[in-house]
Amino acid sequence: MRSLISIFDLSVPEIDALIETAKDIIENPDKYAEKCKRKKLATLFYEPSTRTRLSFEAAMLELGGSVLGFSEATSSSAAKGESVADTAKVISCYADIIAMRHPKEGAPFVASENADIPVINAGDGAHNHPTQTLTDLLTIHREKGSLSNLTIGFCGDLRYGRTVHSLIEALSRYENINVVLISPEELKLPASIREKYLNEGEYKETVSLEEALPSLDILYMTRIQQERFSDFNEYLKLKDSYCLDTEKLTLAKEDLTIMHPLPRVNEISVAVDKDPRACYFKQALNGKYIRMALILKLLEEAEKDSVYHSNEDYIVSDSLSCKNSKCITSVEQELQHKFKLVDAKNKVYRCIYCESKVN
Amino acid sequence: MRSLISIFDLSVPEIDALIETAKDIIENPDKYAEKCKRKKLATLFYEPSTRTRLSFEAAMLELGGSVLGFSEATSSSAAKGESVADTAKVISCYADIIAMRHPKEGAPFVASENADIPVINAGDGAHNHPTQTLTDLLTIHREKGSLSNLTIGFCGDLRYGRTVHSLIEALSRYENINVVLISPEELKLPASIREKYLNEGEYKETVSLEEALPSLDILYMTRIQQERFSDFNEYLKLKDSYCLDTEKLTLAKEDLTIMHPLPRVNEISVAVDKDPRACYFKQALNGKYIRMALILKLLEEAEKDSVYHSNEDYIVSDSLSCKNSKCITSVEQELQHKFKLVDAKNKVYRCIYCESKVN
Amino acid sequence: MRSLISIFDLSVPEIDALIETAKDIIENPDKYAEKCKRKKLATLFYEPSTRTRLSFEAAMLELGGSVLGFSEATSSSAAKGESVADTAKVISCYADIIAMRHPKEGAPFVASENADIPVINAGDGAHNHPTQTLTDLLTIHREKGSLSNLTIGFCGDLRYGRTVHSLIEALSRYENINVVLISPEELKLPASIREKYLNEGEYKETVSLEEALPSLDILYMTRIQQERFSDFNEYLKLKDSYCLDTEKLTLAKEDLTIMHPLPRVNEISVAVDKDPRACYFKQALNGKYIRMALILKLLEEAEKDSVYHSNEDYIVSDSLSCKNSKCITSVEQELQHKFKLVDAKNKVYRCIYCESKVN
Repeated sequence: MRSLISIFDLSVPEIDALIETAKDIIENPDKYAEKCKRKKLATLFYEPSTRTRLSFEAAMLELGGSVLGFSEATSSSAAKGESVADTAKVISCYADIIAMRHPKEGAPFVASENADIPVINAGDGAHNHPTQTLTDLLTIHREKGSLSNLTIGFCGDLRYGRTVHSLIEALSRYENINVVLISPEELKLPASIREKYLNEGEYKETVSLEEALPSLDILYMTRIQQERFSDFNEYLKLKDSYCLDTEKLTLAKEDLTIMHPLPRVNEISVAVDKDPRACYFKQALNGKYIRMALILKLLEEAEKDSVYHSNEDYIVSDSLSCKNSKCITSVEQELQHKFKLVDAKNKVYRCIYCESKVN
Repeated sequence: MRSLISIFDLSVPEIDALIETAKDIIENPDKYAEKCKRKKLATLFYEPSTRTRLSFEAAMLELGGSVLGFSEATSSSAAKGESVADTAKVISCYADIIAMRHPKEGAPFVASENADIPVINAGDGAHNHPTQTLTDLLTIHREKGSLSNLTIGFCGDLRYGRTVHSLIEALSRYENINVVLISPEELKLPASIREKYLNEGEYKETVSLEEALPSLDILYMTRIQQERFSDFNEYLKLKDSYCLDTEKLTLAKEDLTIMHPLPRVNEISVAVDKDPRACYFKQALNGKYIRMALILKLLEEAEKDSVYHSNEDYIVSDSLSCKNSKCITSVEQELQHKFKLVDAKNKVYRCIYCESKVN
Repeated sequence: MRSLISIFDLSVPEIDALIETAKDIIENPDKYAEKCKRKKLATLFYEPSTRTRLSFEAAMLELGGSVLGFSEATSSSAAKGESVADTAKVISCYADIIAMRHPKEGAPFVASENADIPVINAGDGAHNHPTQTLTDLLTIHREKGSLSNLTIGFCGDLRYGRTVHSLIEALSRYENINVVLISPEELKLPASIREKYLNEGEYKETVSLEEALPSLDILYMTRIQQERFSDFNEYLKLKDSYCLDTEKLTLAKEDLTIMHPLPRVNEISVAVDKDPRACYFKQALNGKYIRMALILKLLEEAEKDSVYHSNEDYIVSDSLSCKNSKCITSVEQELQHKFKLVDAKNKVYRCIYCESKVN
């Protein structure tokens, strides 16, 4: 059964095809209005995320399907201690496809290993959120006409921002992407991501949004959270310089595309909303369309009963166990710890659920 | 975009038309069963209100539409601090019409100013609840054949009872309405409402339900909450005299219409339910039908893309700010305080969101 | 109005008919896909129970109907103190059938006495859960071809396990059922149930799962909760012996049917899931189909407007009152305590709501 757990579960041609489907849906909504008639989406949200959940629900409804599920763990069997694996098996009896949000990393993957229906990862802790990345890619494609030959600035919390990491990773598969990393010292992009996905000469780092702005085709804003700073005065000093307002925008290109994964707090001034370059609410709309395309794709593949296993090359060893307290292995009953050898020379393994390193 | 925030957003002819539509729905449900096919209602309930929410949901489903949303703030983005304005913009991507319940006064108005789709106020704190008033008007019309020439008693907590205030205000636009205000001293109708909406000679005040009963065509009961009394003994003394039971009902007209916004606690004895004069459960049913009529009207107007601004004549001033802690201005980010001049002589302004006075 | 409060509200031929309908649904789903078009199910869950709720919702959706409701009491009017009777009356305006879960015993019965639409008991405290029992009966019938001539073992907490009690009671109406009761001393089946529903020579009691296994056609597993034990060491000692694993299974028949009402914690090893004898996830699927059959039956009877009163022979007396703190009579406003005389000689009465004894 084909699921979507990480953006890398999709090849570049598959992503291109999803974008094409989404655009066709936008132009011909009537054609798709009954495509999922009698199909049911289960939204299993172990932690609340209204926008993501409603985006999935709207997507399924606009395909003519229906929706059931829960919006937080307290109204679910999880409160009674049912494992993710068992819930996935039971929900397979009630629905045709699952969208799962879970605070533990790897939980949707565990679900996909046990469900008889496709599972879409709707966010697992700070780990993956592939439909956000698909949303971002569709937005860039619709605004710029392509996913190549772009200068894209990422601004704010680049250290912990999951959506930033995913989008950088996803864009690394396209041509001539120049990346400008705009953040305070304390919130710089982790070296591991930089080294793996960005080539020398194709990125630069800066602390100044104003300095970066003139060169950008796309500006991807994220929130800087006070909690991330060890020094509160440092936070106060920096806060305003990472807020996008109409004044700073005078420095930008006329065809800049301003993106934000939302919810926004104060990192983009409300006055910017009226600027035609503001695309963050369009992004929310694109999120619905790309999810429609994705649901269609996965249900079609499920009907063909195509067997698909993305993670068959794992190993199990008594000497290895995942130590990440945020990993689903830390709570799920009888879940075998499984690993991939990612660096044979240094004997580095990664947990197949949360992808954290184990030596 | 036309929304419904206050009952006064609707003219008397518009209310009459809604009542006619509701009656047509009751007589010809099949005619309406697919009217909202492929339309989606978002129920954004920042605080729980099951009856109101389910009434909206049943209304949309009986029109052939579908529903998404949340039933309390903890499962919504509000927990992450998203502004009402942003939520309204995002939900505009996912639904065709919004029903919003919010603890802060003016929140649905803020939503209506930012949404691209119609917003129905499903209750904003103690401020407005126009679909309850529409429900009451439909009930009176169905029971009495008209909204004029009636003696209507309001009993219980007339001081804080939002539904009472709204219905008195709404009825003030009809002919020959006599009002009997039945309450303890401490819970009398506020003078401001009495002076504005009731004419001398067309109302009287009394503390005795028994005294008032014989004259009434309609009795609108509300709950007296213990918390409202400074003196607990006073509460105990009064409590029973404001409970409607079968004995007191012997004093009433044979065609009395007994109404109650529900939920009822003990202000109407369960034994009264069997009396043919009891109309409070019929009211709940009418609530569904008038909401169907309202959803139809607003979606039809939205399709015509009729631009509508009910509050364009406001002013903004550095010397004015809303001090009402229950107003949405107290929490919403970057929300400009706006005011209407309501009394030029005394320079009295009212906040356009919560309508509280500012000097 | 016909409702389902207890499994005994259904005659054996009625249960047989439901099983036949369920099987027909399984074989001809298309035939049923629009049977409940324009019908609405209200899921009124005063306490969370995801599996049961989603099973009902999936059932209604697969019949072409739609769903509204709430999944826990905090988002319901119950928080404001509305009685179950009033809620049932109001929901009758919004839906065509109710599935109610409530922590108080007898609450769905109170709802059924007040609703104008059928009420299905989806679990009332430790009292009844008839759709679970129907699910179990369908599963046995599908796996064994009949509900007679079977040896069925119940293992685990037989003292408090509601599903076990109900299934034993339900099976007592079929031919040649041999029951093996497998539990620690402290969690034996209550004598009252044993005496009433099991005949001498048709049951045996044992503490050993291993001893019982070879003779069984069906093994019904339940969880042993630590909280049930006064002595923690006793719990630790016993725990493992009531866990079904692949090793113990070597003792069992090749055509054993393993059942469990779910959620499972650790009383069945995950390794057993792959054994073809494991039927607990099939059970979850059967739960959907039998609920489809039940919804169809009750809506059909409601359309015929067949008046039905299962509890007309009650008495009310000043000297009798229900003392069960878990009974709905302990909280519901103005609810008359009603009793049935179940033993004339000893003057034993039972509350018609919770069925507890009153002398």
